[in-house]
Amino acid sequence: MNPKRCAACKYLRRRCPKDCIFAPYFPPNDPAKFACIHRIYGAGNVSKMLQQLPDQTRAEAVESLCFEAKCRVDDPVYGCVGIIHLLQTQIQNAQNELAKTQAEVAVAQTKLSQTQNSDF
Amino acid sequence: MNPKRCAACKYLRRRCPKDCIFAPYFPPNDPAKFACIHRIYGAGNVSKMLQQLPDQTRAEAVESLCFEAKCRVDDPVYGCVGIIHLLQTQIQNAQNELAKTQAEVAVAQTKLSQTQNSDF
Repeated sequence: MNPKRCAACKYLRRRCPKDCIFAPYFPPNDPAKFACIHRIYGAGNVSKMLQQLPDQTRAEAVESLCFEAKCRVDDPVYGCVGIIHLLQTQIQNAQNELAKTQAEVAVAQTKLSQTQNSDF
Repeated sequence: MNPKRCAACKYLRRRCPKDCIFAPYFPPNDPAKFACIHRIYGAGNVSKMLQQLPDQTRAEAVESLCFEAKCRVDDPVYGCVGIIHLLQTQIQNAQNELAKTQAEVAVAQTKLSQTQNSDF
């Protein structure tokens, strides 16, 4: 066994070719990263998706695929979409809080101008 | 050809079995839904994921998988994660706006109490 095979080729029990599409993104010291992505998308699909992307965007694509795969493993029903719903709720709450606080500003400013007018 | 085959079996050019795991979620009148999910995950992976879930959660799982697959087709580098980053930026903006407005409330209230005290 060549200890320098990338995590993907190690997982797939194959020789790691010189131009391996996975090697730059799946170093041998992090086997869980590939296991997760392989379980959700399959190695073939990931390889196909990476091949369709320009080199300089592949690292980011791998990170986002790994994130989504991990979310799907953690939450097999909602995956990443669960996080999106959670964030949308947080935005709604923050916007409600903002509207409430803006109303408080308006009330305080009205009171202030009434008090100042009554000084004359 | 049986016109009642589900969209998945039609796409996979196979007979739609009575207990087809895809049939309840991929009606024949929406072929694009399966095409998208097949392109990103592969039919085998989706079937495996659904089999591991209790019946009553499968419809929601299919919806979230379809959403993620569509995001990945639309944005092959960031997929769903692009939406998550966008929402996180929105939350940050809303929270900044909220902090600013809360500071305005504090200023207005301080001025108000100073004005009221100066009345005595």
